[in-house]
Amino acid sequence: MVQKLDDAQRSALLARFPEWTHEPQRDAITRQFKFADFAQAFGFMASVAIIAEKMDHHPEWSNVYNRVDILLTTHDADGLSERDAKLAEAIEALV
Amino acid sequence: MVQKLDDAQRSALLARFPEWTHEPQRDAITRQFKFADFAQAFGFMASVAIIAEKMDHHPEWSNVYNRVDILLTTHDADGLSERDAKLAEAIEALV
Repeated sequence: MVQKLDDAQRSALLARFPEWTHEPQRDAITRQFKFADFAQAFGFMASVAIIAEKMDHHPEWSNVYNRVDILLTTHDADGLSERDAKLAEAIEALV
Repeated sequence: MVQKLDDAQRSALLARFPEWTHEPQRDAITRQFKFADFAQAFGFMASVAIIAEKMDHHPEWSNVYNRVDILLTTHDADGLSERDAKLAEAIEALV
């Protein structure tokens, strides 16, 4: 069982990743990424996919041409957990 | 400029791809694909991405773990065009 972040931990997470937005309804964080074109956007997605699979923690995401929208939350915790912080950190390291 | 399908052509398209659903509001076709796990789902997406890039016609799509939702429409035609039929055909050949 994964521990859900408490309020202080959630605030710390959001302070650490200011480009991500908190979505309270799902207790998730979201960010939109824009690239030069589809090939660059999908290249980014491929990198994230490999990292996510390695972490066994997967994003909910969508792609329209050069745009990638990512939502992170932890189903098992019914909200944000340390896993989301780790995946967000790895994604930020890519861009 | 890409030609939008007329009513007869649209009906023929939908008859040809019965697993796809017509979304009248956007004049698009959609289909959900389910796989054994994330790796298989993303492997499928990678194949579609390469085909789409080659065709210079890209899907609007989202992925949650083993699920991939694809929407096809042609922005330049403000609705379905022959390009969507070609991409749907190529996607169907993958699964």
